[in-house]
Amino acid sequence: MDKKYLDSIIKEYKHYTIEGQVADYIPELKKMERCDLGIAIIDRDNIFTAGEWEKKFTIQSVSKPIVLILALMDRGEDKIFELVGKEPTGDPFNSMVRLETYTMNKPLNPMINAGAISISSLIKGKDNEERLARILNFFRLLSDNESLEVNQDVFKSEKETGNRNRSLAYFLKDIHCIEGDVEEALDLYFMQCSIEVNTLDLAKIGLILANDGLNINTGEQLIPKKYAKIAKTFMLTCGMYDESGKFAIDVGIPSKSGVGGGIMSSVPQRYGIGVFGPSLNKKGNSVAGMRMLEKISKDYEMSIF
Amino acid sequence: MDKKYLDSIIKEYKHYTIEGQVADYIPELKKMERCDLGIAIIDRDNIFTAGEWEKKFTIQSVSKPIVLILALMDRGEDKIFELVGKEPTGDPFNSMVRLETYTMNKPLNPMINAGAISISSLIKGKDNEERLARILNFFRLLSDNESLEVNQDVFKSEKETGNRNRSLAYFLKDIHCIEGDVEEALDLYFMQCSIEVNTLDLAKIGLILANDGLNINTGEQLIPKKYAKIAKTFMLTCGMYDESGKFAIDVGIPSKSGVGGGIMSSVPQRYGIGVFGPSLNKKGNSVAGMRMLEKISKDYEMSIF
Amino acid sequence: MDKKYLDSIIKEYKHYTIEGQVADYIPELKKMERCDLGIAIIDRDNIFTAGEWEKKFTIQSVSKPIVLILALMDRGEDKIFELVGKEPTGDPFNSMVRLETYTMNKPLNPMINAGAISISSLIKGKDNEERLARILNFFRLLSDNESLEVNQDVFKSEKETGNRNRSLAYFLKDIHCIEGDVEEALDLYFMQCSIEVNTLDLAKIGLILANDGLNINTGEQLIPKKYAKIAKTFMLTCGMYDESGKFAIDVGIPSKSGVGGGIMSSVPQRYGIGVFGPSLNKKGNSVAGMRMLEKISKDYEMSIF
Amino acid sequence: MDKKYLDSIIKEYKHYTIEGQVADYIPELKKMERCDLGIAIIDRDNIFTAGEWEKKFTIQSVSKPIVLILALMDRGEDKIFELVGKEPTGDPFNSMVRLETYTMNKPLNPMINAGAISISSLIKGKDNEERLARILNFFRLLSDNESLEVNQDVFKSEKETGNRNRSLAYFLKDIHCIEGDVEEALDLYFMQCSIEVNTLDLAKIGLILANDGLNINTGEQLIPKKYAKIAKTFMLTCGMYDESGKFAIDVGIPSKSGVGGGIMSSVPQRYGIGVFGPSLNKKGNSVAGMRMLEKISKDYEMSIF
Repeated sequence: MDKKYLDSIIKEYKHYTIEGQVADYIPELKKMERCDLGIAIIDRDNIFTAGEWEKKFTIQSVSKPIVLILALMDRGEDKIFELVGKEPTGDPFNSMVRLETYTMNKPLNPMINAGAISISSLIKGKDNEERLARILNFFRLLSDNESLEVNQDVFKSEKETGNRNRSLAYFLKDIHCIEGDVEEALDLYFMQCSIEVNTLDLAKIGLILANDGLNINTGEQLIPKKYAKIAKTFMLTCGMYDESGKFAIDVGIPSKSGVGGGIMSSVPQRYGIGVFGPSLNKKGNSVAGMRMLEKISKDYEMSIF
Repeated sequence: MDKKYLDSIIKEYKHYTIEGQVADYIPELKKMERCDLGIAIIDRDNIFTAGEWEKKFTIQSVSKPIVLILALMDRGEDKIFELVGKEPTGDPFNSMVRLETYTMNKPLNPMINAGAISISSLIKGKDNEERLARILNFFRLLSDNESLEVNQDVFKSEKETGNRNRSLAYFLKDIHCIEGDVEEALDLYFMQCSIEVNTLDLAKIGLILANDGLNINTGEQLIPKKYAKIAKTFMLTCGMYDESGKFAIDVGIPSKSGVGGGIMSSVPQRYGIGVFGPSLNKKGNSVAGMRMLEKISKDYEMSIF
Repeated sequence: MDKKYLDSIIKEYKHYTIEGQVADYIPELKKMERCDLGIAIIDRDNIFTAGEWEKKFTIQSVSKPIVLILALMDRGEDKIFELVGKEPTGDPFNSMVRLETYTMNKPLNPMINAGAISISSLIKGKDNEERLARILNFFRLLSDNESLEVNQDVFKSEKETGNRNRSLAYFLKDIHCIEGDVEEALDLYFMQCSIEVNTLDLAKIGLILANDGLNINTGEQLIPKKYAKIAKTFMLTCGMYDESGKFAIDVGIPSKSGVGGGIMSSVPQRYGIGVFGPSLNKKGNSVAGMRMLEKISKDYEMSIF
Repeated sequence: MDKKYLDSIIKEYKHYTIEGQVADYIPELKKMERCDLGIAIIDRDNIFTAGEWEKKFTIQSVSKPIVLILALMDRGEDKIFELVGKEPTGDPFNSMVRLETYTMNKPLNPMINAGAISISSLIKGKDNEERLARILNFFRLLSDNESLEVNQDVFKSEKETGNRNRSLAYFLKDIHCIEGDVEEALDLYFMQCSIEVNTLDLAKIGLILANDGLNINTGEQLIPKKYAKIAKTFMLTCGMYDESGKFAIDVGIPSKSGVGGGIMSSVPQRYGIGVFGPSLNKKGNSVAGMRMLEKISKDYEMSIF
């Protein structure tokens, strides 16, 4: 791996950005530049970056595995999986059908919106302010970046237009899969989605996961090993919306995407990777980002299989 | 038809009330007496009553065809059926599955909760106070009972525990099947469900429908004929939750039930019938009420088929 | 009602045939003439006909309520409704989803293909030849037409291309909703669908149903009253595929359509009606036939509501 | 890893067999001994076995990833994934719902029955005899065991009672996801499921997959690397019916189970594992087998995450 290789990859894959569109379901996201493409890869000793790697974007669904880990640390495995299932699914990101179809009567997994909203409601804190502070601090700790903040415009936009998520949340409340107040859980969820990061932040978090929760520079175990593995498993089985299966076959790296254009990947024992490419395909995944990761995975034999 | 016949029917069917339970999904409804059973039947010239015919109960889903008529009068057939479908369904009263499964992406009909909430959002009025006043006045006009009021305790109870309906409503908003504010539409829906009536009120409204909207005493056309027929059609095809088909076969009278224990029936050109029996079967229909109607329909050949 | 009226109706509605297409799912049905439109109406004393009323076509799904009646006469109400439900549904005619979604684990009603195939498997007879003879004789008796026969080309075509129905049938077998051999039940079902009739045949059967099973000319009770009412109820609630609700509102007459272009209608106590118009809309119903029935129902106040 | 360790594991986990039941959906499978438990683990240099490792059982669904590989070698990746999807699912093994719910209108993946039947229909051969011979030879080659045969009694039993699979197959034919004759595809599928193996056979095949298709003893590349990885990916994301997600988290090894009691696991670059434990939980997975693999995975850090 070297800087020159990454530069050439960005150059080679940039034109794929014209095949997709930036997210348009909230006004704030529409402002992103479709042709942006950036990447950061970290291993034990090096940081490699290329393209618009420094640009900030909202983390969106990439927050899901991270907040899941915090919830696991706060409440333990038993409590979490009492409210949310472990089974993969090829669902579209905003589907409601499964909730009632399934006899188990809880969200299938923490990577779909329903599951993620349940998870957010389980974060400890005396009020939402404290809960958000704890989430933000956890993101800052993992990314080693004290400056991470919520983009308030995106948060407001999410909150105003989030009727489908609101519908999910009240349904979850009805089946006892949300703790506490529904609107507070939703607010917290919308806020965690609105945290701004860049590719380096994602790569750093990805590297912590790759090393089973250990910060290899400081020797500090930031996440219990078991929870880091749980997060990576969900990322592999359902981290890319309903293209998770295809991505597992073509790329084979535990990864989580978000409609802000980000992808966080974690190559066990080896690399943390952050990608930014806001031009999305119909499934909600970065068009150029996915292709780029497929190429890199092949060139450096990163598949876990 | 005579009083003696009805008295004997009440006596004969009263013991069936032990086969069911009063509704327990909101605390206020649990207070009803399981063994109550009452009936009122009106034709052109007579009023027959028996049992607890005078007891008040909340109208609940029996309000659906009536508010549908008001919405039709307010907004016209085209607008109504742009937002809500016409197709019968054997759905449980609180199901959400169908909304997304169906390609047409609107509630299947105005008798299921989703459809009824959409319909409530279409009632004219500058605010909810005016809308509620218009609904109440319409119920009073049809039942010739100026004293009808909303039971505030039931309303509050419905509002506090209505997370499933709230979930439905936000989903409906997301697919553009609710006009205006979601919480206002829900409040109006919960209020219409909480109007208190007795069997005579229901029988009188049922008679207006039986006579295609005409008040035969005053000669006044209270409802356009077409809309009265639409209401009766929905009552026949989907008025008894997911027992509508069985009821159409066994009884054959357009009827609408509610979890307050009420059933309003309308025998075209002949009778209006109100039943009260708060002991419900698992489908949400009055156990003794349904059986009583089957018996009366057979004895007086009331089936429309 | 008079001949002149019907002639004018045919003339007025004929051009609607260009809005649809003849059925194309089996080769034999594609041979029909799209612009054909015919009607026959019978009451106690008269027969009125117009257009292509004499043309033969295969009865297809119009056979469903008739074979249901024979099965009820053969096996009794309890046995029939142990295997098949009574609940209306707006399902497309070839849907499989509902079978498993529904907890009751049987076809929702006898008007959808799944239910009709179950019903066919319940017809008495030592072998399929005898069963078919009994069905044919029943159709001949009700239509007072000894010449009714199965169109063997259509039968073969149905059998060869009927993989979706075959799939349904094996699923039904698995959930114990088919008696005896699956392929025999399917053959019988395909044969009953391939019986050739004209509009007068359908009108005559419709009149028997209108008169609760009584042949008013001979005074013979051909069908028990209860079963005639059951058939009419299913025709009203689910006789027109997933337009049954719309048709109930707009027309209000118990009717059953088939993809051969036929519609059989039954106006209680008054008329039997047969329609032929092979140009179908997307739901599988005769485009011009439906509109014609709406007009006639309004002009002669035929709605049962 | 050593023999003593495996012996102690078998001893420790044997009592879990009383928590489940042997498969009872076909008579032949009911004959298995509930308390059997065996294991074989192979790495580059050693073979370790314990318990009833030598007992024969039918391979059942463990055949799915293997026949998938043969189909990929026969027809190429594009053809295979034109007919069958790549998305994981927590579906029960015999569900039909998804087929129609999903817009993509093909089986979600090759590990569910629908997908596996489609795959079987794609195996090359001039008739079923040749196709079966090719499958058997492929199994013999991978397991280095020339004596593998189809258990004819199980095959007949599967064929006779396979109405749900037959239903799936005709539906697949209807949506053009089966090539050639439906009954032939079903026969081939039932035959591949009825091949008898023991744990050592499964371990050997698992080792070939672990080594990306290479027979490390002979140096022969028996399977293209890409296809071995595809098989392992499906095993991880959907190899354990609707416990695949839980198993991925708790065990983290690409594995495929069958209702014959077998599990084949493949630890990339390290081990092939075969398990036999016919006492199944409600999901269709070996009760004691799953727990045993969880223990071994933890003791030897086998998780791929």
